[in-house]
Amino acid sequence: MRETIIIEKEKVELKNPVLIEGLPGLGTIGKIVTEYLIKQMKAEMFAELYSPHFSYYVLVDKRGNVRLLRNEFYLWRNESGENDLVILTGDSQAQTIDGQYEVADRILEFAKEKGVRLVITVGGYRDKVKGEPKVIAASTSPTVLKKAVEAGAVNSPNGSPIVGTAGLLVGLADLKGMDALCLLGETLGYMPDPKAAKSILKVLMRLLNFTVDLTDIEKEISHSEETVERMREMEVQKRLSLQKRRKLEKGRITYIG
Amino acid sequence: MRETIIIEKEKVELKNPVLIEGLPGLGTIGKIVTEYLIKQMKAEMFAELYSPHFSYYVLVDKRGNVRLLRNEFYLWRNESGENDLVILTGDSQAQTIDGQYEVADRILEFAKEKGVRLVITVGGYRDKVKGEPKVIAASTSPTVLKKAVEAGAVNSPNGSPIVGTAGLLVGLADLKGMDALCLLGETLGYMPDPKAAKSILKVLMRLLNFTVDLTDIEKEISHSEETVERMREMEVQKRLSLQKRRKLEKGRITYIG
Amino acid sequence: MRETIIIEKEKVELKNPVLIEGLPGLGTIGKIVTEYLIKQMKAEMFAELYSPHFSYYVLVDKRGNVRLLRNEFYLWRNESGENDLVILTGDSQAQTIDGQYEVADRILEFAKEKGVRLVITVGGYRDKVKGEPKVIAASTSPTVLKKAVEAGAVNSPNGSPIVGTAGLLVGLADLKGMDALCLLGETLGYMPDPKAAKSILKVLMRLLNFTVDLTDIEKEISHSEETVERMREMEVQKRLSLQKRRKLEKGRITYIG
Amino acid sequence: MRETIIIEKEKVELKNPVLIEGLPGLGTIGKIVTEYLIKQMKAEMFAELYSPHFSYYVLVDKRGNVRLLRNEFYLWRNESGENDLVILTGDSQAQTIDGQYEVADRILEFAKEKGVRLVITVGGYRDKVKGEPKVIAASTSPTVLKKAVEAGAVNSPNGSPIVGTAGLLVGLADLKGMDALCLLGETLGYMPDPKAAKSILKVLMRLLNFTVDLTDIEKEISHSEETVERMREMEVQKRLSLQKRRKLEKGRITYIG
Repeated sequence: MRETIIIEKEKVELKNPVLIEGLPGLGTIGKIVTEYLIKQMKAEMFAELYSPHFSYYVLVDKRGNVRLLRNEFYLWRNESGENDLVILTGDSQAQTIDGQYEVADRILEFAKEKGVRLVITVGGYRDKVKGEPKVIAASTSPTVLKKAVEAGAVNSPNGSPIVGTAGLLVGLADLKGMDALCLLGETLGYMPDPKAAKSILKVLMRLLNFTVDLTDIEKEISHSEETVERMREMEVQKRLSLQKRRKLEKGRITYIG
Repeated sequence: MRETIIIEKEKVELKNPVLIEGLPGLGTIGKIVTEYLIKQMKAEMFAELYSPHFSYYVLVDKRGNVRLLRNEFYLWRNESGENDLVILTGDSQAQTIDGQYEVADRILEFAKEKGVRLVITVGGYRDKVKGEPKVIAASTSPTVLKKAVEAGAVNSPNGSPIVGTAGLLVGLADLKGMDALCLLGETLGYMPDPKAAKSILKVLMRLLNFTVDLTDIEKEISHSEETVERMREMEVQKRLSLQKRRKLEKGRITYIG
Repeated sequence: MRETIIIEKEKVELKNPVLIEGLPGLGTIGKIVTEYLIKQMKAEMFAELYSPHFSYYVLVDKRGNVRLLRNEFYLWRNESGENDLVILTGDSQAQTIDGQYEVADRILEFAKEKGVRLVITVGGYRDKVKGEPKVIAASTSPTVLKKAVEAGAVNSPNGSPIVGTAGLLVGLADLKGMDALCLLGETLGYMPDPKAAKSILKVLMRLLNFTVDLTDIEKEISHSEETVERMREMEVQKRLSLQKRRKLEKGRITYIG
Repeated sequence: MRETIIIEKEKVELKNPVLIEGLPGLGTIGKIVTEYLIKQMKAEMFAELYSPHFSYYVLVDKRGNVRLLRNEFYLWRNESGENDLVILTGDSQAQTIDGQYEVADRILEFAKEKGVRLVITVGGYRDKVKGEPKVIAASTSPTVLKKAVEAGAVNSPNGSPIVGTAGLLVGLADLKGMDALCLLGETLGYMPDPKAAKSILKVLMRLLNFTVDLTDIEKEISHSEETVERMREMEVQKRLSLQKRRKLEKGRITYIG
């Protein structure tokens, strides 16, 4: 494999498709959002992307099955609404600078062939989080940005850059004549963050006028909050026992002195 | 995007054009010079350069608008004088060795197509600065070098190398049959240096026989000098309070001893 | 040399060939297995692979003969059995990400041309080893995996990734319509491990229904175990003499005090 | 510039040419040898090699003249003897792995076009040096190696690898049907080593049956030995004064105690 390739499992015809991309990144938010949509919508994989710019290892599942790192395109046919969804998720982003550009370019070429005119990328944005995580929006089109804000997103506060595939897809889409929107969930970013993912899901539903059941992600959030709580307690215990030991040691030193 | 591309917004016809390049680099001098010219001359952007060798992030402005990193070509039509100016500035230089060569090559191909026969690159040169910063000149042509010196530049004192796009454009121009000149402003280089930029602007005006008002850059210089002064005072305060604390601590130690 | 090339020394016709790959890697197991097969079977080299992605040095043998780093294809004609063997070994793996993909791709293209329909890669797997090292199997085909398990391998315990050429050949083979199997010998991995190599040889013999004499590798194992034993003793001696010296020093300090 | 290019200043016809390569490297030996030959023979530059794999800076000479990093081909017409010499020297080796292969490949393609059938590369070999530095030879051809030994070189003692252009040219020459020889002068390698260069010059003269006056390089050797001697004395002085100061300090401490 000399360059990034896309293998179509099935030739599909799409109705006003919108591409939603979410790959591994800050707080795993992109991947949580896209995998949640795929599962809830029972979306079906119809194409795979492979690249010599992904890492040079292969994955083995529990049954001993091997496969290359890849990105995957899923399709959800929107029977009642306007836009079919093409959902892109995967194992990896490209590992080099020009690899990042090559992969993003290949994704957009493919999306354009399939009739995509709006690209939405999803990821995380590192910040302190108060209450419900905010969803920050940035776009190549003022009209699309306005719609995102109407759907519950807020404008990027200080114009900080967007790194990786979520950023490049938006920037390159503009050159190829497609509209593009980036939605970033506020997150501390130090562990997978389903809460930020849920905020993005809500914006996406309002923006694209579809519905998925959020019960499962709320369970994930509870579970994740319990984990954080347990970790905090362990941390407190550790600190207390450390203080105790230090006092003892100080006592001993005094005694020796 | 697999390779560096230039997108022309408008097909332009140019009169004996000279290319002036200034990109981010030491003391931000190149970028200050070119952006100052663009603003003062009300030069208009007519072409954009994109490259898979720039960093893999996108910029977001205050209104939430997204764009790729790029270099930009501006045009100033010199109604009264001899040479139209093509001014090249931008967000970034290429991030890899062969990327640096590819981008410089693409710039020169484009410049040549547009009729450019003289390329001037602008940057910084790290040195102690006494009084007015000197402008150091190096060229592929003794004639051009002589003119630069007549316009107020000095010869490179010890033949040190010129790194990055400002250097490669000059070296590659020679292979493509264009004359090229590099003007480097003396700078300490640890912060944006409008004073060095002003020295270069003065050389450029004499060399190419045009005028721009320098009032605004003089304001920037004052502003920058005040900032440096404030930083120096803060540094002095910090050192004094540190000395005070140390004396107190010494006192205490003596007492304990 | 701009890309990976394969030079055929001899055009060969093969009977249901199976490719066995073993290159330098963890515990040198891949290389020990393939070189052992080549020696015992008196397999003959019929093709060489060169790549600009190998390191940029050349090898010099004891007679002063120079050659590039390369991979080598050997052929063993299986007169009595079903499958000719193509054995791939060599000096090096590719040094960059996209180089790894390019070399693996070139190997598989060549193997496919030669009629190979099953690719077996061999390497090491870092783990604690109890008794006979286990051979862990992973495959693109459940049928092949089942046969490997019947031949004495075990299923990969926790689905950890397989790094480098041994992994990529398996992953890429699937895209090219070939079956592929990876056999990894359990090893501590800190030195060449003929014992793990022997375990793999036994699986290969049962799987592909051929026989090689294992006497020589058993000698290597004894030799390697003696080396380890000697190193352990040296380590013990070192520690003892260190303890002795420390006691002496402590004594001295006490005396001085 | 997207790939390595060679620009011929003059089309030349050559008589049984031999290529001698010496670029910057260990002890600067390759460069000293080739530049010495060029100067003594008054060889003339007839071609330049440029590469996007060299570093991305340009050189400025004392007169302010700028040029790209490059390699240079010089020609010495051997009026009385058998072989014209093509001498390759330059500013730099390629900075990346595949760049190293690309540049070496381009050099050999060009040499082959010009009728070169023997390639000799020159460099340094790190070792303790007793008396006259030995010249270590390695080759793709036993016949050429034998001739080199007859001319005063010795066989490579332990088959260590040869790194960089000096190595790759030899390894790749073999693939292109040219004979190749590498001559490495023994050196400590921590500074430019004209003595090792002289040893190589003597082997080259005997091997290729030409003569250059060695007076100038002997002057360089004396000069270099004086420098080393001065450095040694400074080192001794430093150590003595350090010991003195330490004694004084010890004395003081004793006194205080």
